Amino acid sequence: MQSKLSGWDDTIAAIATPPGVGAIGVLRLSGDQSFEIIQKLFPSKNLKEQAANTLHVGYLKEGENVIDEVVISLFKKPASYTGEDVIEISCHGSPYVQQQVLDALIRNGARLAKAGEFTQRAFLNQKLDLPQAEAVGDLIASNTKASQDAALKNMRGGFSNVLKELREELIKFSSLIELELDFSEEDVEFADRHQFILLIIKIQKTVDRLLESFKLGNVIKNGVSVAIVGKPNAGKSTLLNTFLNENRAIVSEIAGTTRDTIEETINIKGILFRLIDTAGIREHSTDVIENMGVLKSKEKIKQANIVLYMFDVNEMKTGELLPIISAIKVENPNIITVANKTDVAQNKIQENNCAAQELFISAKENLGIEKLKDTLFEMAVGNDLNTENVVITNSRHYSALAEISKSLEEIKSGLVKNISGDLLSLDIRRCLYFLGEITGEITNEDRLDYIFSKFCIGK
Amino acid sequence: MQSKLSGWDDTIAAIATPPGVGAIGVLRLSGDQSFEIIQKLFPSKNLKEQAANTLHVGYLKEGENVIDEVVISLFKKPASYTGEDVIEISCHGSPYVQQQVLDALIRNGARLAKAGEFTQRAFLNQKLDLPQAEAVGDLIASNTKASQDAALKNMRGGFSNVLKELREELIKFSSLIELELDFSEEDVEFADRHQFILLIIKIQKTVDRLLESFKLGNVIKNGVSVAIVGKPNAGKSTLLNTFLNENRAIVSEIAGTTRDTIEETINIKGILFRLIDTAGIREHSTDVIENMGVLKSKEKIKQANIVLYMFDVNEMKTGELLPIISAIKVENPNIITVANKTDVAQNKIQENNCAAQELFISAKENLGIEKLKDTLFEMAVGNDLNTENVVITNSRHYSALAEISKSLEEIKSGLVKNISGDLLSLDIRRCLYFLGEITGEITNEDRLDYIFSKFCIGK
Repeated sequence: MQSKLSGWDDTIAAIATPPGVGAIGVLRLSGDQSFEIIQKLFPSKNLKEQAANTLHVGYLKEGENVIDEVVISLFKKPASYTGEDVIEISCHGSPYVQQQVLDALIRNGARLAKAGEFTQRAFLNQKLDLPQAEAVGDLIASNTKASQDAALKNMRGGFSNVLKELREELIKFSSLIELELDFSEEDVEFADRHQFILLIIKIQKTVDRLLESFKLGNVIKNGVSVAIVGKPNAGKSTLLNTFLNENRAIVSEIAGTTRDTIEETINIKGILFRLIDTAGIREHSTDVIENMGVLKSKEKIKQANIVLYMFDVNEMKTGELLPIISAIKVENPNIITVANKTDVAQNKIQENNCAAQELFISAKENLGIEKLKDTLFEMAVGNDLNTENVVITNSRHYSALAEISKSLEEIKSGLVKNISGDLLSLDIRRCLYFLGEITGEITNEDRLDYIFSKFCIGK
Repeated sequence: MQSKLSGWDDTIAAIATPPGVGAIGVLRLSGDQSFEIIQKLFPSKNLKEQAANTLHVGYLKEGENVIDEVVISLFKKPASYTGEDVIEISCHGSPYVQQQVLDALIRNGARLAKAGEFTQRAFLNQKLDLPQAEAVGDLIASNTKASQDAALKNMRGGFSNVLKELREELIKFSSLIELELDFSEEDVEFADRHQFILLIIKIQKTVDRLLESFKLGNVIKNGVSVAIVGKPNAGKSTLLNTFLNENRAIVSEIAGTTRDTIEETINIKGILFRLIDTAGIREHSTDVIENMGVLKSKEKIKQANIVLYMFDVNEMKTGELLPIISAIKVENPNIITVANKTDVAQNKIQENNCAAQELFISAKENLGIEKLKDTLFEMAVGNDLNTENVVITNSRHYSALAEISKSLEEIKSGLVKNISGDLLSLDIRRCLYFLGEITGEITNEDRLDYIFSKFCIGK
């Protein structure tokens, strides 16, 4: 997809570093006029004559007005991030100074970049395919080891490579089918139908595995929500504190994170778990679960990926536990039952072990917490994380793969029913279309703008 | 001051860009082991063999673990910011990824830099003197044209140059006096006392001018507080809106900014004016000013740099205005009187023009606002801002200059009284000591640590 997009000839500029005060701030300039624009502001050296990938210290000036002392990084096309001439300006990290530099760049011919426009240009200049470009955005948003690794893998083309292979095999057969159409009057079969069915089944397996991986991908990208439920005296807040004291996750402050329902986040083996507090309690509801006095509403149990039901091993009456667990399981089967306060009541543990699968912990004394974490991790991720397999983390890819899966099924049933080559060809083209849409070989301007608009400005 | 300070041999690392999510983040590494440490994490190239001031793209890896795809900037000593080997790592702007990079640098031998430590090293390696180093901090904190310009001027050595000249002239005479002491038995006078008095007077003039400039420097660095007072119906909030609509200042969010008392800031010709609202009114106080119903307490009038007293030209009764203005002037002489709502009552203007110096405006119709701004600017800054003179913005410099001024007075009176060379020599040394303390030629570790601790980490 190398068509010219609007605004494509402009030279774009943006502040690339996070907003706020820091030691340094970096601005980016990309496009045909990059050198021309920076030269107007950097009189001490002829930058065009300097080698690519070099650094130059000097004053940024507009006329006699000194804006800052800066370091200029030169990248020349095509060996740059965007594939265009790129200049990076490292200035002092005052928001005011950075804005002055940006204003000067714009006064001298640059246009303010749109969100993600640098990466969009990299895509349009074939420096990256679409999944790789999307992975750049994912990497910037990553906040755990797993999300960082998945983004890096995709940035390096992991996912794209899998798709390219599928696409090539499909194209090979497709061209044979199309060839048959050219010789339709002679009724030849260049494409071995049996081989083709085998290929389709093989591709289906890969697509199914990718679709299946989205569950894990979603966990990697968005974390796992855990609703902690139980009576007020069960020790929920002690457990939260025990979790947090040793392992507070670094969570970036991105607008839109639903901080109103998320209480705290922890990082278990590189996966983000969002612990949802269910402190608010209605005591006299008519609903079974609500009446247990364990949570505000069934909604949180339903919406959570995992429900952690916690009780005080000293307070739980015989015969009370199993009905509660059954009631929760109706709403959400992913339940972990935790018996707390084992430190003060060793003798009651056996007696109350009626669920036969609960974990015994003491949140206060930090006993059994590692086992609980392992259980959470296993329920969320299983063994999938350790595989070298490509994992889908992007819902756009998931939707396209679902369409591909549908097309593959149609191709297969067409082959089995021995439908005509031209009908078969249509199904194959549909499949190729969705494959191409993922990689960006087939797309349109609006779609691209939407994808890149989710990036931050300066990337 | 080139003594070895503690931790001076370490290689330091820090995130240099503002915290948060951005397109890119930059980390800095400075010290003897910079190349060694980065080499462990950047296997694709031998960086030590690369030329200084070059850029290198590649993967940052710790063993098999890919951390990010980064751009490495190489600066070799002594031609770097700190005067040491400096490596800058431009990575993807996820706080998580930046932290991973920092952790890897530290695991491989770097130490986390203290606030301002990069600039402190630049100072210790004589890349900057102390006022220049302090100006780096000022530039990062700058939020107006005037504060940016003052910081840049000092960063380029404007202030230091003035002091160096003074110091050299003083040292010349001092050495002649010391020479006399060596030949004291011969009772010779190498130093012409009359010339010396003339020199001291000349130096005094410069020091007095610098001391005087601190008032402006303070305005440039900290802005001008304007208490807007007047009855509720005078149109204060309309005036605020009129100011803000056309000219909202860019103010960085630095912790400690006293947002509780500051209402809004505007930028007039590069100077920040902090408009302090005095909306809360006690109607029946016994105090004259408070009883006027114009402000919560006298404190705000006292503390403000400028008081802007505003009244509704239609409501002001004859004979009421002058007593109010007089009462305010007792607390603060810098008063600007503004008669508002001229748009609805042209005929009353003459009649109420009893203060003879008020400005007539219509905040609603944006009439007279430019004149009001000019008046504010003139009262705060006068004509000083346009001069090419060096301006003191740093209270540390001000204190030292005040001591210098005192010593100069003592030297002068000693010369007049014709005191002995050794006593004179002591006074001169004291004067030179304070000069050296400003430039950092004479200082101590604690003092330095204090100065640089006010910087941000990574600078």
